[in-house]
Amino acid sequence: MLEEARRIVEEYDSSNLSIATLGSHSALQILHGARLEGFRTVLIVDSGRRRLYERFNLVDEFLEVERFSDIGEKEAAEMRRLNGILIPHGSLVEYLGYEKLSGLRVPIFGSREIVRWERDWRLKLRLLEEAGIPTPRLYNSPKDVKGPAMVKLPGAKGGRGYFLVSTSEEAEKGVEKAVEWGLIENPSQAIIQEYVIGVPMYFHYFYSPIYNRVELMGMDLRYESNVDGLRRIPLERFRVEPSFVVVGNIPVMARESLLRKVFDYGDAFVETVKRLIPPGIIGPFCLEAIVTDELEVKVFEFSGRIVAGTNLYLMGSSYSQLLWDKPMSTGRRIALEIKLAAENRALDEVVT
Amino acid sequence: MLEEARRIVEEYDSSNLSIATLGSHSALQILHGARLEGFRTVLIVDSGRRRLYERFNLVDEFLEVERFSDIGEKEAAEMRRLNGILIPHGSLVEYLGYEKLSGLRVPIFGSREIVRWERDWRLKLRLLEEAGIPTPRLYNSPKDVKGPAMVKLPGAKGGRGYFLVSTSEEAEKGVEKAVEWGLIENPSQAIIQEYVIGVPMYFHYFYSPIYNRVELMGMDLRYESNVDGLRRIPLERFRVEPSFVVVGNIPVMARESLLRKVFDYGDAFVETVKRLIPPGIIGPFCLEAIVTDELEVKVFEFSGRIVAGTNLYLMGSSYSQLLWDKPMSTGRRIALEIKLAAENRALDEVVT
Amino acid sequence: MLEEARRIVEEYDSSNLSIATLGSHSALQILHGARLEGFRTVLIVDSGRRRLYERFNLVDEFLEVERFSDIGEKEAAEMRRLNGILIPHGSLVEYLGYEKLSGLRVPIFGSREIVRWERDWRLKLRLLEEAGIPTPRLYNSPKDVKGPAMVKLPGAKGGRGYFLVSTSEEAEKGVEKAVEWGLIENPSQAIIQEYVIGVPMYFHYFYSPIYNRVELMGMDLRYESNVDGLRRIPLERFRVEPSFVVVGNIPVMARESLLRKVFDYGDAFVETVKRLIPPGIIGPFCLEAIVTDELEVKVFEFSGRIVAGTNLYLMGSSYSQLLWDKPMSTGRRIALEIKLAAENRALDEVVT
Repeated sequence: MLEEARRIVEEYDSSNLSIATLGSHSALQILHGARLEGFRTVLIVDSGRRRLYERFNLVDEFLEVERFSDIGEKEAAEMRRLNGILIPHGSLVEYLGYEKLSGLRVPIFGSREIVRWERDWRLKLRLLEEAGIPTPRLYNSPKDVKGPAMVKLPGAKGGRGYFLVSTSEEAEKGVEKAVEWGLIENPSQAIIQEYVIGVPMYFHYFYSPIYNRVELMGMDLRYESNVDGLRRIPLERFRVEPSFVVVGNIPVMARESLLRKVFDYGDAFVETVKRLIPPGIIGPFCLEAIVTDELEVKVFEFSGRIVAGTNLYLMGSSYSQLLWDKPMSTGRRIALEIKLAAENRALDEVVT
Repeated sequence: MLEEARRIVEEYDSSNLSIATLGSHSALQILHGARLEGFRTVLIVDSGRRRLYERFNLVDEFLEVERFSDIGEKEAAEMRRLNGILIPHGSLVEYLGYEKLSGLRVPIFGSREIVRWERDWRLKLRLLEEAGIPTPRLYNSPKDVKGPAMVKLPGAKGGRGYFLVSTSEEAEKGVEKAVEWGLIENPSQAIIQEYVIGVPMYFHYFYSPIYNRVELMGMDLRYESNVDGLRRIPLERFRVEPSFVVVGNIPVMARESLLRKVFDYGDAFVETVKRLIPPGIIGPFCLEAIVTDELEVKVFEFSGRIVAGTNLYLMGSSYSQLLWDKPMSTGRRIALEIKLAAENRALDEVVT
Repeated sequence: MLEEARRIVEEYDSSNLSIATLGSHSALQILHGARLEGFRTVLIVDSGRRRLYERFNLVDEFLEVERFSDIGEKEAAEMRRLNGILIPHGSLVEYLGYEKLSGLRVPIFGSREIVRWERDWRLKLRLLEEAGIPTPRLYNSPKDVKGPAMVKLPGAKGGRGYFLVSTSEEAEKGVEKAVEWGLIENPSQAIIQEYVIGVPMYFHYFYSPIYNRVELMGMDLRYESNVDGLRRIPLERFRVEPSFVVVGNIPVMARESLLRKVFDYGDAFVETVKRLIPPGIIGPFCLEAIVTDELEVKVFEFSGRIVAGTNLYLMGSSYSQLLWDKPMSTGRRIALEIKLAAENRALDEVVT
């Protein structure tokens, strides 16, 4: 699709581009940023979501579908007609899936291929390891578990289907049950990862193909139900299993001495994706880490596109302010990169 | 008082209005917003608080009283003389009480009558139910308790006088003790509410009578002493009863897919208050909810006016930025609504 | 050094000053603020850190050293040549130590002498007590411990070497072990402080010698590894000792009724330092407190200079907005104070 996306974008009227996305996840931020940089905006919605987005005067063209899974050539054609570039986010990937997304005939600001890597835990962790980024240990078998570990059942969405174990026995029993209950088909599908003791921190980056540099856009903590509420009740009396469904995000700033590592890992990630999954990262990505009390940054997951935590910084973060000295959200940064690419006749470098 | 407030405001010189409030709670934000929109500002203080507010150059006229409970016709007359509109907040309601507030002869930006509903837990929950907003289950008797429940003793201020129970036996025993200790007069005064497992989130709204629309201003988490400190100590060794006194607020952004519900509930609340307590909500209000790991939003309380969590967004929130593209706090939004009302000769629609 | 710093600064070309700091801690904020107020910027770095700071276009002159502990007359001379005023922060103090810092022949914006008080826990608490600021009780001996207490082993950096005890027996045993393991030389070196039950809050102030007033710049919570991660795991299964290494900061707003105390303690601190450690505080400082559920503010530590929590407010806080109505970080406030001092021929009042 890379060649085709490039051909499509070359035929666009680059003085009259549209920025398109799906009505969910970080759409408000993306639309807002697009408007600030002077783009026409296109939003794919179903009828239920349309009402939400109509409350904000941010959308020039609604593309209404019955279900998000219906999205196909009809919408792609409409986006092409509007000289549209589609901004992917987590919900778009979730609703379309890799197969549909990889074949959608509209230029996408971001990597399509990385989605294939992301849906496979082992590939995901391999990518991080190739980049030389420290990751929690991955156990090949429940028997190998030593100390706290997180068992992840693939396909578990939004934080459910995770459970914590503290011994190999617990891990073995848990995985057995998951098979018994039909959550996975065989034990080898369970991902068992060392549970690193420390605090979570999610680092938001932007890789600019135009400037060939990694920028730090901000960072956040996830606010998860119910685990972030459990501290408020005496656990010994109310036996509740923790769940990890993200319902919001909380701002945080890292101590300045962490930033070297944070940038080094961002650089390494960009280089590695460029090598393994050409043409590589375009625009926003996220490294999701545990910071230990030894100030190690252990990355347990990544996202190859905009994350919802960036919604916190619609008016810019301290970090984006340092670079731009004006309110620069990730949504706006995307629009700005497309604008710069258009001005430099380099739109083909920012789409796949 | 509604008719009188409207008569008073009609006699005001609408080109020379004042915005007045009480020196506490969210006064700095209200004053700051009033100044940004060009209003004269009036602040009711006692001598102790005067010094605090003098540190900021935000007040044109101080009305000094000995005690906040002294506030009466003298201060009302002074506010009327200054073409003043009084902005109520939680501290004003607490110090004056419903009776005094309902009879105070000064136009108030907001509903007076809703205070009567708010002081009665059963009315409060009825209002939410009439609006079709999901609420935690209310138990009629301690005997009915199933699973975690919060027992609230009315009159308990700022988070004390709450306790958690996990069984009907605990509930019965707790309520008995509360009667024994004279905290309540009879068991039926205790409010027993299902303790929903999830995470708290407080949604700040603004209902504009002028635009007839509900706006989302932001959201926050409350930072409560001592409960939010207890996670830092090994609870099994340090047996400390949790308390829930709000000492601050922490910013949070909800995931975008929650916003539909958040707006729907805001709309429903406004419609219901308009019907049951005319003329309804004017300006800011808050729905206080638990978000579960099924992404349900269960509203356990509301506030019919500005909440202190909005102080976080003195320079605007991501949400207010989406609508206004300039720093729009709730305090400033109040002033803007009064300005719009004055310009449209509709001041009578924004006061009671 | 005070007289010499004043003499040096008087010989400076005050229309061509530089602001210098060390590449760590809050350097980005300090540099950013200096640039906004029109200063030349100087950054002391080692080769590893230089790359980090080169990512931001904020530094006019890098002074590269092999190790931070090498900083001496050579760098001081270079700063003097550039009419430089050095802004101290926690990392500068840590790397240089009191002896080196007190003799460094370059004007410093802030007190050098307070560092001597800060490195001695007993002096530190005496200062707070002299100011009439409530502090947690200090136990003279482990035997005196009643209720929860924190044992601090001096020299422990960044949050390690702290442990919690709940009885005098635990305290005695813990201190014994610390001696046995060589962490301290004798039991009297251990600082044993009452562990106040409540929530932490860190208040950022700025004392302006030019305006002779205390300003509130913001407040934060510290995000500490691993303690802030432990709430996410079932503690009874995963026995992990809490550690308190600051890895980031989270924004918070105090309830408005706390501000009187917050300002009163800030005023009292400034007055007391002026009396005991002349010429007193210059610019930023921080009081680090536990807020109890009785709304008491118990200050357990202070910092006589900029704290990293201010990095949250690079675009200003709600509080600085109230005073300045433009984005005013602590870094920018420092630069503004130096500018005001230069304009008023009062640079000697803001350096030591």
